[in-house]
Amino acid sequence: MTEIHPHPPVNFMDLAFRQAEAAYEKGEVPIGAVLVDPASGEVLAADHNRVEERHDPTAHAEMLVIQAVATSRREKRLPFADLYVTLEPCPMCATAISFARLRRVIYGAPDPKGGGIDSGPRLYTLPTCHHRPQVIGGSGEDRSAELLRSFFKARR
Amino acid sequence: MTEIHPHPPVNFMDLAFRQAEAAYEKGEVPIGAVLVDPASGEVLAADHNRVEERHDPTAHAEMLVIQAVATSRREKRLPFADLYVTLEPCPMCATAISFARLRRVIYGAPDPKGGGIDSGPRLYTLPTCHHRPQVIGGSGEDRSAELLRSFFKARR
Repeated sequence: MTEIHPHPPVNFMDLAFRQAEAAYEKGEVPIGAVLVDPASGEVLAADHNRVEERHDPTAHAEMLVIQAVATSRREKRLPFADLYVTLEPCPMCATAISFARLRRVIYGAPDPKGGGIDSGPRLYTLPTCHHRPQVIGGSGEDRSAELLRSFFKARR
Repeated sequence: MTEIHPHPPVNFMDLAFRQAEAAYEKGEVPIGAVLVDPASGEVLAADHNRVEERHDPTAHAEMLVIQAVATSRREKRLPFADLYVTLEPCPMCATAISFARLRRVIYGAPDPKGGGIDSGPRLYTLPTCHHRPQVIGGSGEDRSAELLRSFFKARR
């Protein structure tokens, strides 16, 4: 789950997409995420949605990379880390990102139906939100949207 | 983590409070949760907040009981199950509850600062919410609030 990439610059969003494509091949909703230490250029964890494989409704890509890095480092907060994810995080993941104090979230396509950051509850705009990461949306939007469209079309 | 109680009626909220008290003793924010099959009266899982122990910002009581039951039954949806939890769930847990299709959520104290159901984003009122469990709030409110007050007072 953890890969080391010694030769930056690595295209972290491309790594997240490769995870999403791996999910697609397994019949998982194709969403991938990579947690990065931008200071060192190190990929701390890369994973994809595993809801079907684990029979776990909480096994979203973002949750898995946060849990993997936090538990292995024994640090519940990762304020140095940036998350690259192919789709706008849902409210569950957006809240976990805030709890983990991530520095930045860079996402592919916005998700008007299921997102929690720039869509739906817009959680980071609420006065009750204790930590608002920087958010960069729309980074690889077409690739993300096309992957999801193709997945759901094939399932119909 | 899973306990069987063959002699209903069991006070499920009391079981959730015993979990919260166990968390308190370990230095965890004292919140407990119990996932129940109301048809059989069976307690499917009981757990408490383990954020400190696991160094995992997502290890809330609600997440742990949902994950335990879903993965052990190999069912990502648990539409027959009721969740008893001592505090109003946060947006992360409220979303996980919806994803798991739980039937009902019965919570102790409301959490105006951190809740996601009747406070903050009020997630189940959004048009993008696909599953809205029944919600019963304020069941054991004083006991829950007192436990949390005592915990945070002792830590100051």
